[in-house]
Amino acid sequence: MSAAPLSPLTYDQAGVNYDLIDPLKVSAQRAAAATAGLLGGHGFAEVAASRGESAYVVDVGPFYLASIVECLGSKALVADEMQRLTGRSFYGAIAQDTIAMAVNDLITVGATPLVIQAYWAAGGSDWFEDKARAQALVEGWKRACETCGAAWGGGETPALAGIVESGRIDLAASCTGLINPKSRLSVGDRLGAGDAIVLLAASGIHANGLSLARKLVERLPQGYLTPLPSGRLYGEALLDPTPLYAPVTEALFKAGIVTHYSANITGHGWRKLLRHPASLRYVIDQVPPVPEVLGFIQQQAGLDTTEAYGTFNMGAGFALFVPAGDAARCVEVAKSCGIAAWHAGHVEAGPKQLVVDSIGLRFDADALQLR
Amino acid sequence: MSAAPLSPLTYDQAGVNYDLIDPLKVSAQRAAAATAGLLGGHGFAEVAASRGESAYVVDVGPFYLASIVECLGSKALVADEMQRLTGRSFYGAIAQDTIAMAVNDLITVGATPLVIQAYWAAGGSDWFEDKARAQALVEGWKRACETCGAAWGGGETPALAGIVESGRIDLAASCTGLINPKSRLSVGDRLGAGDAIVLLAASGIHANGLSLARKLVERLPQGYLTPLPSGRLYGEALLDPTPLYAPVTEALFKAGIVTHYSANITGHGWRKLLRHPASLRYVIDQVPPVPEVLGFIQQQAGLDTTEAYGTFNMGAGFALFVPAGDAARCVEVAKSCGIAAWHAGHVEAGPKQLVVDSIGLRFDADALQLR
Repeated sequence: MSAAPLSPLTYDQAGVNYDLIDPLKVSAQRAAAATAGLLGGHGFAEVAASRGESAYVVDVGPFYLASIVECLGSKALVADEMQRLTGRSFYGAIAQDTIAMAVNDLITVGATPLVIQAYWAAGGSDWFEDKARAQALVEGWKRACETCGAAWGGGETPALAGIVESGRIDLAASCTGLINPKSRLSVGDRLGAGDAIVLLAASGIHANGLSLARKLVERLPQGYLTPLPSGRLYGEALLDPTPLYAPVTEALFKAGIVTHYSANITGHGWRKLLRHPASLRYVIDQVPPVPEVLGFIQQQAGLDTTEAYGTFNMGAGFALFVPAGDAARCVEVAKSCGIAAWHAGHVEAGPKQLVVDSIGLRFDADALQLR
Repeated sequence: MSAAPLSPLTYDQAGVNYDLIDPLKVSAQRAAAATAGLLGGHGFAEVAASRGESAYVVDVGPFYLASIVECLGSKALVADEMQRLTGRSFYGAIAQDTIAMAVNDLITVGATPLVIQAYWAAGGSDWFEDKARAQALVEGWKRACETCGAAWGGGETPALAGIVESGRIDLAASCTGLINPKSRLSVGDRLGAGDAIVLLAASGIHANGLSLARKLVERLPQGYLTPLPSGRLYGEALLDPTPLYAPVTEALFKAGIVTHYSANITGHGWRKLLRHPASLRYVIDQVPPVPEVLGFIQQQAGLDTTEAYGTFNMGAGFALFVPAGDAARCVEVAKSCGIAAWHAGHVEAGPKQLVVDSIGLRFDADALQLR
């Protein structure tokens, strides 16, 4: 393994310029918000607090309806390159990642995922010639639906030559769920000082920060085939699929634990712990172990603690905010679902801030601008 | 305008090879169907008859839940080329097309569209630099939501350099709706001999058959700028947005007209009139006027009647199967929504077949294999 490079690799260098995308996002968010009143024509109403949250929620009377669409992003490029290098297909794993992107967001509002639709846009019909890869995608997709307890409703498999690059595929998932009973709705009104923070284990990089992880390959003499300290290959470890956290949130409900708030730790890494709009201080005193591949990226890209935790999940894939008295049981419930979990910290009154003294990490209110 | 070419232009020549895609589709459909039982864990059940229909339906107790994801396809390439040639942005129009692809399918099962999610995957962050184009997309998307009475819930705007081609965008929409009251469910059990066929007017090519329409450009000396008989440009006419038929289906419900079945006329053109699995004979005796751009394509590509009506909508964008006594009122309701409509034919007992004697068109059961 080579030593850390002299110049750190930042996310901007990795090629995504949010300064260009963000004005459109803001404009789209405003236009979208202006359509809420249309639901009144059907006798329904949006849950306004869900605007800015990870999934959109509508009050349809007997329960709330939640929906979302999410894409995998550039992780498919890693799967393609690793297939070229090793002959193995990783499409079963990235199928799970794609569904995780949608489902792990949908459950933050308290929804039970019910229906998943597949969006697989290939760069031409010849993408489907590799039958083993296509079959891995189908089987991985089905397995992930099974884990989530959601029906695979159908989907769209267009061949988009001229739009999607030849030999590539754009994977996305939409998910519809219900918040039932309505008391499961979780859009932030319950979060407060004294709540415990329970972190659920990540499996690796998940599907965020891949642009940087791919950029890093250019600096590694053996590229994706670079061995990590454990002997596993860098590319293989990058492709560990994202855990599906829906079984945990369902089990918490059945155990009678009321989640006050939750956050899916995706882009922006631990800054996502500041997602809730209120002025609250989040104190973490137990830091989950860092997945090997993320420790490797941090070292090789020369990222300091702030950059690493502000970009990657660093071992915490999902945050649950629960009543302090339920924290230990919440950890046990997660473990019973096969997901490691830690009672990692608590919420305090105070100016909005994330504080992790054991690693010298601090994010203030301005570290995350999502709304 | 040049004369029809000697060799006809077929859809296979246009570059989409369904023989490669269809095995994956079948495999995915089987895997998807096998997940239906998972809904039982939540106390719900799928409406099995919706498998193979245009949207997936789940019985959630007080009403049915319908969901779908659909993509625009290659029409964005026409918008891009026309912007290059004329300086105008057509992204407002193709925003409506994208929503129409999802909504016009969703309503076939009797659903009221409630929430639309945007999926706009660009080939890199620089796509968003053209602010006028991005704004046209936002405004067109919002207008289409307004027409459908559906809330724009949110969406995903990834920059997917390396997957989506530079300078291009992959547009898709997911839509969730309710079938409420449950008596509005329309998955085919009511269709029968004696029903009237009402056809709703198309505006042009909509978003199907674009590969052929784009291929044709290579044969036209002035390409997209070729004038049609009316003087309108070929590229401009191609970009007439797809009508949103949701206001019609909502108005029909309010008027007390029970739709026995409906079909969105998309890919496979009029063969979609054979969508219902039953053995029934569909007789059309009034053929809607052919939109100028489709007549032009038929002539220039040298398509015979069977090829043209088996590929394009040829003026009929949506088919409603209603009780014979309601046909005239159904036409009036559509017109009151600003959509031209015709009581075009009827359903008979007999082997599965579509018959349009006035133009010598006949499609048998084997003309459409969707399930």
